[in-house]
Amino acid sequence: MSQVTVLGAWPSPYVYRVIWALKLKGVDYEYVEEDVLHNKSDRLLKYNPVHKKVPVLVHAGKPIAESAVILEYIEETWPQNPLLPKDPHQRALARFWIKFGEDKFGALFGFFMTEGEQQVKATKERQEQLTILEEQGLGDKKFFGGDEIGMADLEFGWLAWWMDVMSELAGVKGIEAETFPRLHAWIQRFKDIPTIKEPLPDRSAMLTYFKGRRAIFLASAKS
Amino acid sequence: MSQVTVLGAWPSPYVYRVIWALKLKGVDYEYVEEDVLHNKSDRLLKYNPVHKKVPVLVHAGKPIAESAVILEYIEETWPQNPLLPKDPHQRALARFWIKFGEDKFGALFGFFMTEGEQQVKATKERQEQLTILEEQGLGDKKFFGGDEIGMADLEFGWLAWWMDVMSELAGVKGIEAETFPRLHAWIQRFKDIPTIKEPLPDRSAMLTYFKGRRAIFLASAKS
Repeated sequence: MSQVTVLGAWPSPYVYRVIWALKLKGVDYEYVEEDVLHNKSDRLLKYNPVHKKVPVLVHAGKPIAESAVILEYIEETWPQNPLLPKDPHQRALARFWIKFGEDKFGALFGFFMTEGEQQVKATKERQEQLTILEEQGLGDKKFFGGDEIGMADLEFGWLAWWMDVMSELAGVKGIEAETFPRLHAWIQRFKDIPTIKEPLPDRSAMLTYFKGRRAIFLASAKS
Repeated sequence: MSQVTVLGAWPSPYVYRVIWALKLKGVDYEYVEEDVLHNKSDRLLKYNPVHKKVPVLVHAGKPIAESAVILEYIEETWPQNPLLPKDPHQRALARFWIKFGEDKFGALFGFFMTEGEQQVKATKERQEQLTILEEQGLGDKKFFGGDEIGMADLEFGWLAWWMDVMSELAGVKGIEAETFPRLHAWIQRFKDIPTIKEPLPDRSAMLTYFKGRRAIFLASAKS
């Protein structure tokens, strides 16, 4: 095993947070694809016995789970190209928005798991959370942490690619320039960074994969 | 306003995390009681416009919200008596369990908001999460981070005092020595630390307060 290994699954937005962070730091790693839905490996079960989920970062033989925890570890272990601001108060603000992202993931994502009246309600909830992000999280900054890409941008990276695919499949509007001009501009800036763009999964493969996931979500909600 | 101010509410377990951290660090602070339920102050609305909740730490005029974020800030700003281990992997493990605590709060707490069959289900869910904490989180360690009290202990501090009151009011067993010997022993160790014990709210006041809260939760679930 190489010094740094990432256990991942190509459709998981959580996994890309770790991949992006390592790439932004210039850290070499080995990537291992896990079949999380149908056949979890013994390695995954051993390395993340509590959640049995990806991503897992294995460094010098020791595993770390949970993308937000892994990102803090990466920041401490490889301090080059910092992902958190230096100023303590600015660091706290970045972590505040990361926590917001963790806590509101369900609220931002619910529209994709629902249909009909429930979806209308979930989409309204999504718009409310996006408005908070637009106005208070991003505001007039280039990136969530200021002028440079950082940890909070990686937290919300799924909005730049997955949200669009999921909105299309669910038949609702995505993050459009008319409604969310700042988030929309941030998405363009974020995706234009080669390190961010290069590892992104293929859009048509995502459409196929998440179409299947949505069908399963909706079927299980009815049963 | 003094250099360090905590906006709090006496029944909130989240607030004590901040109070405990400051006391363990030996940092002087001013405490301001907020009436979060009935009359949020302009100061609270200004300092935590996103969540409008306590605790808020104000340091040198700058506010920080979210107890987990505040604790990271306290650790960085006042490095004496560290609340996280020095070893990077051990730090990641502490943060993993803190995240577990944040994510599983609802699952650990659901029994208090429910009754009848729902409560049976919620209590079973609570026992499952407590078992994970007992066996994988605490294990044979004295504290969650090792031999010394740390940030993860503060995260789970509510289990040592609030859980008992809530269990009594909800008519279910608390964390008993027979079922959870390690967590039970940890609770005794945790509560025996004078810095932890001293600021804890009065038990009979808690019983009165949370009895009222439970009645409101149950009534709103029916409506």
